[in-house]
Amino acid sequence: MRRHLLSIDDLDVDDIDTLFATAAEMHDVQRREVKKLPALRGRTVINLFFEDSTRTRSSFEIAGKWLSADTINIAAKGSSASKGESLRDTVLTIAAMGVDALVMRHPASGAALQVSQWVDAAVINAGDGTHEHPTQALLDAYTLRRRLGTLEGQKIAIVGDLTHSRVFRSNVLCLTKLGAEVTVVAPPTLMPSGIGPWSAQAGFATSYDLDEVLPEADAVMMLRVQRERMSGGYFPSPREYTVGYGLTRDRLGVLGPDVPICHPGPMNRGLEIAADAADAAQSAVLDQVSAGVAIRMAVLYHLLAGEES
Amino acid sequence: MRRHLLSIDDLDVDDIDTLFATAAEMHDVQRREVKKLPALRGRTVINLFFEDSTRTRSSFEIAGKWLSADTINIAAKGSSASKGESLRDTVLTIAAMGVDALVMRHPASGAALQVSQWVDAAVINAGDGTHEHPTQALLDAYTLRRRLGTLEGQKIAIVGDLTHSRVFRSNVLCLTKLGAEVTVVAPPTLMPSGIGPWSAQAGFATSYDLDEVLPEADAVMMLRVQRERMSGGYFPSPREYTVGYGLTRDRLGVLGPDVPICHPGPMNRGLEIAADAADAAQSAVLDQVSAGVAIRMAVLYHLLAGEES
Amino acid sequence: MRRHLLSIDDLDVDDIDTLFATAAEMHDVQRREVKKLPALRGRTVINLFFEDSTRTRSSFEIAGKWLSADTINIAAKGSSASKGESLRDTVLTIAAMGVDALVMRHPASGAALQVSQWVDAAVINAGDGTHEHPTQALLDAYTLRRRLGTLEGQKIAIVGDLTHSRVFRSNVLCLTKLGAEVTVVAPPTLMPSGIGPWSAQAGFATSYDLDEVLPEADAVMMLRVQRERMSGGYFPSPREYTVGYGLTRDRLGVLGPDVPICHPGPMNRGLEIAADAADAAQSAVLDQVSAGVAIRMAVLYHLLAGEES
Repeated sequence: MRRHLLSIDDLDVDDIDTLFATAAEMHDVQRREVKKLPALRGRTVINLFFEDSTRTRSSFEIAGKWLSADTINIAAKGSSASKGESLRDTVLTIAAMGVDALVMRHPASGAALQVSQWVDAAVINAGDGTHEHPTQALLDAYTLRRRLGTLEGQKIAIVGDLTHSRVFRSNVLCLTKLGAEVTVVAPPTLMPSGIGPWSAQAGFATSYDLDEVLPEADAVMMLRVQRERMSGGYFPSPREYTVGYGLTRDRLGVLGPDVPICHPGPMNRGLEIAADAADAAQSAVLDQVSAGVAIRMAVLYHLLAGEES
Repeated sequence: MRRHLLSIDDLDVDDIDTLFATAAEMHDVQRREVKKLPALRGRTVINLFFEDSTRTRSSFEIAGKWLSADTINIAAKGSSASKGESLRDTVLTIAAMGVDALVMRHPASGAALQVSQWVDAAVINAGDGTHEHPTQALLDAYTLRRRLGTLEGQKIAIVGDLTHSRVFRSNVLCLTKLGAEVTVVAPPTLMPSGIGPWSAQAGFATSYDLDEVLPEADAVMMLRVQRERMSGGYFPSPREYTVGYGLTRDRLGVLGPDVPICHPGPMNRGLEIAADAADAAQSAVLDQVSAGVAIRMAVLYHLLAGEES
Repeated sequence: MRRHLLSIDDLDVDDIDTLFATAAEMHDVQRREVKKLPALRGRTVINLFFEDSTRTRSSFEIAGKWLSADTINIAAKGSSASKGESLRDTVLTIAAMGVDALVMRHPASGAALQVSQWVDAAVINAGDGTHEHPTQALLDAYTLRRRLGTLEGQKIAIVGDLTHSRVFRSNVLCLTKLGAEVTVVAPPTLMPSGIGPWSAQAGFATSYDLDEVLPEADAVMMLRVQRERMSGGYFPSPREYTVGYGLTRDRLGVLGPDVPICHPGPMNRGLEIAADAADAAQSAVLDQVSAGVAIRMAVLYHLLAGEES
């Protein structure tokens, strides 16, 4: 495994298998009364968030604390960054304090990669612009593999605002690497430009027609519609989005009872996912959250304590 | 004791006695140089605050840390909640990470009860709308019992904005349960509608006349006037409020030297309480704060580690 | 050593030597894989910040955690302070919870001294208005002494907005106490009134001419220009400030290769310091940050665990 986790491309299949095996052990810790391992005692993990994200930040914070690391949150709003300091100076300063890992969310695609070239600390990309969100993809793949047994040959539909989704980008890379047959579905206005050549090369399919894809799917992953897109001319109205691309009650009926439904959250119930689908027996949404802590423990563990073990 | 602490009604007198006995032990820890007990090592406590509250949040955070729990703060402003996520999805997500206790403040009355029906974690109501704030009432009663020896038969006046006060509601329940004779005092505009039947059934008295009540009181509890009420037509002016219902220097003279003065803070000095009263020898304000940590340690301990001990 | 650290004047030369010796040991901890000492286990340190400061707050938080203290952040925006509570009530409340140290930043000069007279906890001034920022001065002096061997007789130039700089005030006190020959340089509009008598008494020099001072300097400390001053009539334009008082590329050429360049951060690259100077081999900027954690560990250690050791 490399020194940083910036992109799913930093991991080969063996790395992912190793992470999943560790995550499975960490997952067991989560069910214990005493959720505490000494592995990262004396290591310092900074959650450096230039964008708000309660769930991702909390998940990393819990992961760090359960591994006995010192975890410190820095919300970059109200930080030196807002006083005109450059990103480079901000992260060099934080790193100079003696930090072991920098978990970083930033609105600019490529920010985590940049930062990894400046600092000695391990950098974990917790979302960079519309680029990647690798731990989200890992927890999704981990959750689906536990549900489906294997990802090899499984037909997985990823549905929604592909253009602005780092979750989609990381998931396509991760799921295809693990042998899944991915089809991505979006309205034409939200299908990324250049997806044709990329899908051909990476080996995934594209579609504008959710109803054609759903009956074949072994798993479905719904993406969040960002509120700020709704009035952006990407689709005529929330209602029309739901009609064309929402996992409605009707479409839920088309899915088999063992077809997991994923959503990275926060969900817009009634928009991209109906309440019936979100709460269905096959919904994997809360499993994803639970797996998130285990995956992040595994990532922190391998990046910070890996060599010794 | 029940699995959650949502209302004083969740506790019977024995429960309260048990909590106070534990709190007394925790109070001793507070005076030690090394303020640390291993009781909740490996448990995770989330402070989920949908409203700001430095003092309550810090008090719970200190309580959790002294018991060796992992404590994590989530300020729900800037959280998924602000991205349109439902309360249910927000708390299910947090709970799914593997949380043992959810300390929750929310502007809606009944929110904590709702949440307790959704999650497996222990829910502690740290204030829900104008409904209840049970740990505040417990720390008040604990403080008064230490000052007065017993609450049985003690005459306690609760004075101020009763309509909007969860502190008042929890305190009436707690103090009457412990045998005190409570009189609540407010201007007619701030006396809750329906207080007649409630006071008759619950066994407390009401009054519009502070000067009639004070000379008889064994203890006085002043409530905070919320700034946002001051221009709401509830009373003509801050000055008139003080004249009618403030614990002024003159009224302080009426109190006996052993009559404790309580205030949940933050105080509006010069409005509901004069500086002389806030700083008087019989003021219990800082004792309340100190007791707050002990009470919250006791609550966390009994909810999370209770069975084993 | 006194019970608080409010001003550099609280320390004599022996105190500073003791702190630096401890900081050197702490600095070694920073280079270890397991950065953790048990010294302050069970002590509670509050970071009470009435002004934002990511770097100072994080530095104290890391220092506290590495010493095993419970560290709790209170950002006073959104706190009781904003509900109209007096500073005195706010800090008495926090102290009453059972706090051992209060690390405090406040916009009012003298606030930390005030607070130290109200509470039993050790108060550490992390910046009070335009008055002092003693741990910054200690980390600067520590960094320079490591670079220069000794401060005795060293010519040190402090350059920039002296009027509004607590860093300058603490540094002049600290560096002259340690035997350095300090010259402070500013445009006339940013030279504090009354600096004539003060400099005469304290034994430092003043100048309006950076180019006269630089060739003689054994070390240079550039101060941050606060953005909010730029349009305040203090200087005609950022460009003119740079021409007169910036550490430009040209002026960098005048400095010897062993002359350390300090800046407390966050830097305005291109304004008070050119990128070439900030990134020069002799730049001590990141050493300052690293030393900051060690100095703050030393301060916390001596104030909280000092007597036993």
